[in-house]
Amino acid sequence: MKALVYQGPGLKSLEDRPMPEIQASGDAIVRILKTTICGTDLHILKGDVPSCAPGRILGHEGVGVVESVGAAVSAFRPGDQVLISCISSCGKCESCRRGMYSHCASGGWILGNTIDGTQAEYVRIPHADTSLYPVPPGADEEALVMLSDILPTGFECGVLNGKVAPGSTVAIVGAGPIGLATLLTAQFYSPSQVILIDLDDGRLEVARRFGATHTINSTDGRAAEAVLALTGGRGVDVSIEAVGIPATFVLCQDIVAPGGTIANIGVHGHPADLHLERLWSQNVAITTRLVDTVSTPMLLKTVQSRKVDPARLITHRFKLDRVLDAYDTFARAAQTHALKVIIEA
Amino acid sequence: MKALVYQGPGLKSLEDRPMPEIQASGDAIVRILKTTICGTDLHILKGDVPSCAPGRILGHEGVGVVESVGAAVSAFRPGDQVLISCISSCGKCESCRRGMYSHCASGGWILGNTIDGTQAEYVRIPHADTSLYPVPPGADEEALVMLSDILPTGFECGVLNGKVAPGSTVAIVGAGPIGLATLLTAQFYSPSQVILIDLDDGRLEVARRFGATHTINSTDGRAAEAVLALTGGRGVDVSIEAVGIPATFVLCQDIVAPGGTIANIGVHGHPADLHLERLWSQNVAITTRLVDTVSTPMLLKTVQSRKVDPARLITHRFKLDRVLDAYDTFARAAQTHALKVIIEA
Repeated sequence: MKALVYQGPGLKSLEDRPMPEIQASGDAIVRILKTTICGTDLHILKGDVPSCAPGRILGHEGVGVVESVGAAVSAFRPGDQVLISCISSCGKCESCRRGMYSHCASGGWILGNTIDGTQAEYVRIPHADTSLYPVPPGADEEALVMLSDILPTGFECGVLNGKVAPGSTVAIVGAGPIGLATLLTAQFYSPSQVILIDLDDGRLEVARRFGATHTINSTDGRAAEAVLALTGGRGVDVSIEAVGIPATFVLCQDIVAPGGTIANIGVHGHPADLHLERLWSQNVAITTRLVDTVSTPMLLKTVQSRKVDPARLITHRFKLDRVLDAYDTFARAAQTHALKVIIEA
Repeated sequence: MKALVYQGPGLKSLEDRPMPEIQASGDAIVRILKTTICGTDLHILKGDVPSCAPGRILGHEGVGVVESVGAAVSAFRPGDQVLISCISSCGKCESCRRGMYSHCASGGWILGNTIDGTQAEYVRIPHADTSLYPVPPGADEEALVMLSDILPTGFECGVLNGKVAPGSTVAIVGAGPIGLATLLTAQFYSPSQVILIDLDDGRLEVARRFGATHTINSTDGRAAEAVLALTGGRGVDVSIEAVGIPATFVLCQDIVAPGGTIANIGVHGHPADLHLERLWSQNVAITTRLVDTVSTPMLLKTVQSRKVDPARLITHRFKLDRVLDAYDTFARAAQTHALKVIIEA
């Protein structure tokens, strides 16, 4: 089968690889219909994710059809159309039993990281009963690909952890796909202001179309002053980091109001300064999270009832044999205006 | 009247000062019976608290008797015995109406900071109706002095923010008065382990008497390994910083389990490294808080019902005219084994 393979920092290739096989009784083999590329795949390609070894098929998102199942799988059978969660969970370990699937003792984020992923014609899904979701009849497949990772990530790590509530003032630092997914799902809770901050006017324009009440281009280094001006000098109740570098995390500290929350979504490669000399008395909470995908069933209902349309994040479509072009388009987003790219297997 | 006055970094004196007077209709003048010294007073004396100007009477804790009240005070009258909250609150501003009294627009921590404090024979208390508590008949005055600041601080900033729950594993870094107050109040919630970490064996011995299940002397720099060994390699559910320096805050990051909370109590003068390159995916929460004293009425009940005895924190007693000796004893705690010192006016 065709597969996109990580070959070490800076290197990837489209290869012929053997079909995956059932290895454990809880496994399913899924034929991929649609998958996508995540910012995390670019982190891997930079060599920032040491757990992902060269030779790995990348990808942790997708919608497909069950091809075969192991003897212990009872919730799915061949022919079922399924949504693949980016998080594999056994459902049995201590972390799973408290709903923290991201830290499953034999799962978590393993797809396209420590085991082969979804940017291929077929993928092996461990713990299939608790790592796949049935696709509702008539659902938009492409919209559902956004539910593998990006929509629950923005929602759980940003909106839920940030405690967005009716009337909240919210700032989202980073208007890339994750920041925009956060913007879309923050609106479930009727915040009074959602301010998007980015360096790219094109992305800020998209943010306005997606419901941002205000946008700030931070190129001049004065974003904090602009946020304070928009919030009567208080700062925001919820400050969401959706970039993953120290400077944007510090900006989140500069704009959070007393009693507010900084919700980190970004994947960070370096420590950041925490300004405890100011924040110790500010009654703030700072949260981090690898998405658990506990909200996926709820998000499926919001998509089906049209409370949110994650297909708005999709800007480009490619066939799997053009996956290298897809990567190029996604990586050069400033020029291509790519948000999420759909890859059809 | 006699008063302990901050004279600039490193300098303090016992002086004769004029009696305080009612300045606003919500004020009360309180004759001090008992007060104490807080670690924050030592921070002021180091010059670390720029809001506190030379000439200021220090102190933000105490029990006293109402001497006179302004025209608008309705909850207290002369002769009432009162507990003074370290946090003054108007009860009317946006912060107060959400229970965040520490950020009251015309209050917060002002006593012994931006207005004269309690280390004197008399003190003016603004917003008296919402900044004083009636002392229950027959209560132990000295125990109640511990409710002005240290007990609610340990409880709100450490135990409540840290979400200590039945069965939790808890580490408290710093076995000074605040760490010990946190230890005492953490036990309300029946945690399974409470590990106290300090450099001083004397304080760790006190911690064991106060209910610590384990103690670790961190002089060897291997406290994190010791905590991991005590928790099956997981780390603790709740990691509480009760010192206020970058190294102890980093230790809290090293020992928190996935899904856990780091609750900061310490007053910090410097930024600390936040290891987002590890923590971004660890589903942790980090909280900061200046005590709101919202829990004071509840803590009063726990003292009255003997669920906790904060008088155990008291090691020394001085008359106000020996307040300089009291400071000396408190500042040299490593030698004197002082925890809280009572000053009788």
